Parts: sequence; C-alpha cells; structure tokens
Amino acid sequence: MENRNYLKKVIIDKVNGDDIAEVEDITIEESRLNIFLNGEKAISMMCIPIDQKAHAIGFLMSENVISSIDDVDDITISEDGLRVDIKAAVDEDSLTNLYKEKTLVSGCGGGVTGNIAGQVQIPFNQTKFVISPEVISSEIKQFYQDSELYMLTGCVHKAMLYLEDGSTVTAEDIGRHNAIDKVVGKCKLKGLDTTKSVLFVSGRLSSEMVVKAVMHKVPIVVSRTAPTHLGVTTAHKHGLTLIGFARGKKMNIYTHSGRVIG
Amino acid sequence: MENRNYLKKVIIDKVNGDDIAEVEDITIEESRLNIFLNGEKAISMMCIPIDQKAHAIGFLMSENVISSIDDVDDITISEDGLRVDIKAAVDEDSLTNLYKEKTLVSGCGGGVTGNIAGQVQIPFNQTKFVISPEVISSEIKQFYQDSELYMLTGCVHKAMLYLEDGSTVTAEDIGRHNAIDKVVGKCKLKGLDTTKSVLFVSGRLSSEMVVKAVMHKVPIVVSRTAPTHLGVTTAHKHGLTLIGFARGKKMNIYTHSGRVIG
Repeated sequence: MENRNYLKKVIIDKVNGDDIAEVEDITIEESRLNIFLNGEKAISMMCIPIDQKAHAIGFLMSENVISSIDDVDDITISEDGLRVDIKAAVDEDSLTNLYKEKTLVSGCGGGVTGNIAGQVQIPFNQTKFVISPEVISSEIKQFYQDSELYMLTGCVHKAMLYLEDGSTVTAEDIGRHNAIDKVVGKCKLKGLDTTKSVLFVSGRLSSEMVVKAVMHKVPIVVSRTAPTHLGVTTAHKHGLTLIGFARGKKMNIYTHSGRVIG
Repeated sequence: MENRNYLKKVIIDKVNGDDIAEVEDITIEESRLNIFLNGEKAISMMCIPIDQKAHAIGFLMSENVISSIDDVDDITISEDGLRVDIKAAVDEDSLTNLYKEKTLVSGCGGGVTGNIAGQVQIPFNQTKFVISPEVISSEIKQFYQDSELYMLTGCVHKAMLYLEDGSTVTAEDIGRHNAIDKVVGKCKLKGLDTTKSVLFVSGRLSSEMVVKAVMHKVPIVVSRTAPTHLGVTTAHKHGLTLIGFARGKKMNIYTHSGRVIG
C-alpha cells in the first residue's frame, strides 16, 4: 500500500456523553472508475481507486464480457488512476446484456448485472477440491485480523481467495462485489487457478455474490454472515459449497457439504 | 408482518468443532421486483418482496423520476407481489438519466443511479430542525433491538425515519438502499413530512445513501458505522448533518454539527 491518497483526513466532532471534542479522523475515498473497452466507455463504478486493473478485469470476467484472460491484449491505466483502458476480444451479447436487464442487485457494491441467478449458463461444478473445517476456522480468523483498511476507516469489505497451495490473495473495497471482482482479477492477471480455491467474503451472500463465484468456478464460498435464500438455491443448483456464519469453530454449511472434510 | 412467505426454510449442516448436526434454518427470500411506469417497464430490483408500493415510490422519488407524491395517479400491485404498476407524471430527463450514466454504486442495495454526488440540483438545506444526543443514543439502541427480520435471518438492513413528533417509520430489506427507499416511500404514501426528521440506517454511509437523504430533504442522517469521504463531502455541500459510529453515548459528527444540541 505505497500510495495512500485514497485515505482522506476529516475534522469531526467526537461526542461521548456530554464531552465533545474536535478531532481528526480518516475516511476512505470513493471514486468513480471509468472502464473503457476497445476505446468505448463500457461502465463506471464507485469504488476505492486501488487495484483498478484487477477490478476492471475481474468485473468484465464476472459478467462474461471477457471469457478468458488470454483474450486481453492490453490494459492501461490513466495517471489519475480513474480510467482503465482494455483492449480485448469481447462477448458482445454479454456486453449488451450488462445494460439490457436494468436489474438493481441487492448486495453491497453491486449494480446492474446481466448475470442474474437462473440465467447463468455454467455447468454444475463437480470439482473434487475439499477443505477441512479447521482450515476454514483459522483462515476466517486471519481474514478479519489482516484488514488494515477496515481498522483505519471501518468502511470496507474484503474478499480473499485461499488457493490450493495454501497461499492467499486479498482485496478490499467499499463494495463487497468490487472486492470479489478485484481479488478474482488479481488471480487472473497472475495466472492463478481459481477452480481449486475458497472465496472468503465479508458481508452477506446474496445471489449475485454466489453468481460471481459460479462464473469463476470457485467451488467453496465462506462468509461470517448470512446467505439469502436465492444465494442458497443458486449455490445448490450450480454445485457450489456455501458456508455462512463461520465464526470460531462454528459454521453453517448450506449446500454441497461433501467438500468440507474433517 | 401477516404474510411471511419471504421467509424460506432450508436444511443445513451446522458445524461446531467436531460436531455436525443437520438442522432447519431460515433464510430470506430475494426476489426480483419489476416496476412499470405508465405501462412501460422502468426498472427491476432484487429485494425482499414486502412494502413493494412504498419501495417503488421511494425509489422513483429518490431518483427524481417522480417529483411529488401528488403526481401519482395510481399504484397497483400484482397478485404475486412482484410487479408494481404506477401511473404518474414523470420527469423524462431523470428517467433517461437512470440508465444513461451506467454507474455502479458501491453501497448495499444500490445499482445504477442518475443521481451521483455532485450532480444533484438541490438547494443547501437550511432547516432549523435539531435533535439531542440523548435522543440519538436511545433511538439507535431501539433501532437495533426492534429488527425482527435481522434476528431471524441475519441478512437484512434497516432504515428508520424519526419524525418531528417523536414517532418512527421503519423498513427492512436485503439492501441498504432499498430499506431507505422503502421507508421514505412509506412516509410519502402516508403524507408524512420528511423535512424535519432523522434517518437512521444500518450499515455504511456511502455517497448514494447521503444523496437519497439530500433528495428527500432529510436534515440528519445517523449510522452505527462509517461514512465514506464522498459521503462526508456530499453532506457538507448540501447542508446535511452526518453522524457515524453512533454507539451508546458515543457518536462522530462529520458535518453541520449545529443540529445536535444537548
């Protein structure tokens, strides 16, 4: 985190009962990132302007606008960090679909999506990748301890991919969706395999979070909080192991519990 | 809450260390609500299908598509509860603007919006409405105690308007934005005044939450958690009192603290 100009100081009135003190506090910047695809504006998103390339790639791959990282010819970022230009072979139908449905999703950091649950054309996930409850417990603990931006601002969501070799990739953003797109994008840019991984997310598991995991063939998703019913049915249908309320040694396994082996 | 078919039972594997038990759990439905305006599909949103009329009205007024509740001639809801038909005089520019910007917002329950911070044409709020820190403390406590859906599912956000006479109106949804649109819509449908009120919201205060309050001339917004920097600057610019981290007797007042009088 060399560049921290997304942290902004503000002066606040800190109230504690009858005491009021004027103190300095830190808030997090929320910027509009513009994504251009082959020279044309594709979409904008409100986000923390870090990991912008990964964010753009992750989002476009989550929405199937770009099918494979091999289809990407070039990615550049503007000096102010608020414009990403991508040259890539795109799936025109998915790009059109992004706007066509005009569906506002319910979860954090989302927005329009063409990939509403039930419309995803992805085969049932049959991967044999498994994980133990002990690893989930220890990773979720670490997951929350390591969130520096959250500590500073109380205003971010985090996503982490735990990979087959035990290494992890993390990303943070004001939106849950953005955090997922960023962490997936980071893996894609590095050529890391997401098909044998566990996605840890802060915040609730609404259907569009599950759809993102399905799109990237992530077999297991873990959150400290609750899934929606559509999140559960989407996970069930696509062969995804969905785990909620993972706290300490406890967790609720909603679907396909065969991948959790003690 | 007479009709509770938005609560769905699921069978889960409940893990606690080495113990695994198959138990029944409750998850919350996430449905697609379709809003039709003068016979044409305006937008869809993923939400909990309760307070649909209020949700539709609140959303369209938040986006300035409908300027006044007096401009609404008729609201009907389909038998399955997933389609709201509104006949109203609309602001065509705002309706077009809803889709034009293609900006994904960062907060919960959001989506596209034409009302990005900085573009709102609303005068600076000069209302003399004030509140004491004691009332904020007691109301935020009550706010969290009264959330039955949260207790049941752990998967909802809540919004509450505390009105000038001390009465409150509440709404819950899987998305923060939806909860705000619903609670504002409820007030508009009942002819209640939101210009002398305090909006309590669960979850973070990103700019589009602040913009909604600005649009409805709500002078004070309170959350238990953090605002973004754009949320703070938007509140500052539009004369809105923004309070975060309201917990017990503590709170941080980010802007226009003159409305908080002990």
